[in-house]
Amino acid sequence: MIKYILTTILCTLVLSNCASLNHEPKRYCWVTGLKPEKADYYRKLHADPWPSVTKQLKDSHIQNYSIHEIDIKGKTQLIAYLEYTGKDFDADMKRLACDPEIQRWWKETDPCQSPLPQAKGIWADTKEIFFLK
Amino acid sequence: MIKYILTTILCTLVLSNCASLNHEPKRYCWVTGLKPEKADYYRKLHADPWPSVTKQLKDSHIQNYSIHEIDIKGKTQLIAYLEYTGKDFDADMKRLACDPEIQRWWKETDPCQSPLPQAKGIWADTKEIFFLK
Repeated sequence: MIKYILTTILCTLVLSNCASLNHEPKRYCWVTGLKPEKADYYRKLHADPWPSVTKQLKDSHIQNYSIHEIDIKGKTQLIAYLEYTGKDFDADMKRLACDPEIQRWWKETDPCQSPLPQAKGIWADTKEIFFLK
Repeated sequence: MIKYILTTILCTLVLSNCASLNHEPKRYCWVTGLKPEKADYYRKLHADPWPSVTKQLKDSHIQNYSIHEIDIKGKTQLIAYLEYTGKDFDADMKRLACDPEIQRWWKETDPCQSPLPQAKGIWADTKEIFFLK
């Protein structure tokens, strides 16, 4: 009987873990330019990001976040892809933007970036036209 | 006793499912141009992709595949992000490229795209400079 109860508890824990893994995240993809004279510093920062920054991102329900660079017609562009697993993206982003460590990080990274004309801030939005789970 | 055995079997199945979910995929991010005169047709195809094509992509160990569009200095660019969960990407992509349905799909999509000068085929590679799990 004890074995049965323990096994049932284990199953419940595993199932609840799987349920969280199966939660559907919302995808975001953004683009910004990278200034040639600041590119190496930007790459260096992102090769070894501050733990205070990565912790804040995770606490803001961001996962599977990658940044990729590519030259498009002589200009280096950065592509950010990330997934948001929270319930209120705007609220989480506002809270993130108020964090002193995030502000200290952006003070280093913002001057490296060269936003596209249509961007409201640093990163310009893209539009998703296809998704295959 | 029967209950205990059934619960143990259920736990094993759930655990093996979780293990596969925890497998680390390899990320790919590519860019290509979208011809203005073919943009609507490309979007229409991707809004309702052929089941034979999505099946082949899944069978080739591709998951979490999204395509995003953005205007960069007057040209529409497409960004593809996908994850590969197989063991031999080149072999899977070669097999994929030989599939008649994939070839029929590319016969429709290729003429819509305007590759960047550095692309070896349709899609140009990007370089990942940051990742947060």
